[in-house]
Amino acid sequence: MGNPILDVGEGVVPDMTTVADNGVNVQALLEAREVLKGSPEAAQFTWRASAKWQGGVHSTMEVQSFFGLGQEQNHKRESVFEADHPEVFAATDNGITPIEYLIVGLASCLTAGVASVAQNRGIQLRSVEAKVEGAHDIRGILGADSDVRNGFNDIKVTFTIDADASRQEIEALIAQSQKRSAVFDALTNPTDVTVELA
Amino acid sequence: MGNPILDVGEGVVPDMTTVADNGVNVQALLEAREVLKGSPEAAQFTWRASAKWQGGVHSTMEVQSFFGLGQEQNHKRESVFEADHPEVFAATDNGITPIEYLIVGLASCLTAGVASVAQNRGIQLRSVEAKVEGAHDIRGILGADSDVRNGFNDIKVTFTIDADASRQEIEALIAQSQKRSAVFDALTNPTDVTVELA
Repeated sequence: MGNPILDVGEGVVPDMTTVADNGVNVQALLEAREVLKGSPEAAQFTWRASAKWQGGVHSTMEVQSFFGLGQEQNHKRESVFEADHPEVFAATDNGITPIEYLIVGLASCLTAGVASVAQNRGIQLRSVEAKVEGAHDIRGILGADSDVRNGFNDIKVTFTIDADASRQEIEALIAQSQKRSAVFDALTNPTDVTVELA
Repeated sequence: MGNPILDVGEGVVPDMTTVADNGVNVQALLEAREVLKGSPEAAQFTWRASAKWQGGVHSTMEVQSFFGLGQEQNHKRESVFEADHPEVFAATDNGITPIEYLIVGLASCLTAGVASVAQNRGIQLRSVEAKVEGAHDIRGILGADSDVRNGFNDIKVTFTIDADASRQEIEALIAQSQKRSAVFDALTNPTDVTVELA
């Protein structure tokens, strides 16, 4: 989950002589929507990540288990990620910076959404690419200017899409993807975050 | 960058018989703060990620270049990430979900901040671990209930820290890290995100 897959929007009746296959099981998603309408408790997910400090500003994160559909779940594999700061900040650059993980998530969420919505609308995709740019005035985190926020100033996503559809139809795919994107919402609206010592 | 390193807060005079070494070059950060106070244009960074659709809801992201300090920069290495949906959503689980990348970023940002602030305060860290849990009602992205948002309901971060410091001092490290965290700000406050077709 974690992206706009599920509300794939309004479908059109596809031309069955050329059925689109983007590899998305839309039928399963539409069924999940109906099932979870009647069992909101199954829709309560908990996503988890753990970080371990490696020295300096370098840390290693692991992601594998999550909770959802009323029980513990696991990804097929554990995923491990490195974060650090670049050498221009006198750090070891053993991984991307923490804030870059946000735009990685945004790019993947919107891309998955485009594929899902296209599938539901009978549009065959040939290629989808997204470029994300996050503008960041680092005087905020530096404490150099208290009027500058710590996070991004703004974020811009640019899609390049080759598909059996008009430009207008492709723009509509992007709009529906954005409308139901978990990451787009998490970045454009506030979330309550609590930080505690065990 | 991308995390709370730089405003390391108020230091104390460390006991020089046992100088803390957490591997963070605080001196360089404090100098950067002073330099960038006088040259705001050098503080304007652009972080970049690109995504390529791989079929289904699977995509691959690449991160390497960024702009900052007035010029193009590069991480030492290109980093590649996979995102997908788990098998319980009829997907191929070739990577973590997009929304999980947000908590990976949060965990790493706050952890780097703790190390940096500890360094500036002369506190030797022995180990730092953070567990992040993001609660997510997936009825939002499903389109099953229009009153449910698409993103996280809330996020909880729990640190376990072993350091040469009192519990109160360790709690203060966490508080200062949070105060200057780029990712904490990006998740708790809104950012303008524009999405376009090239």
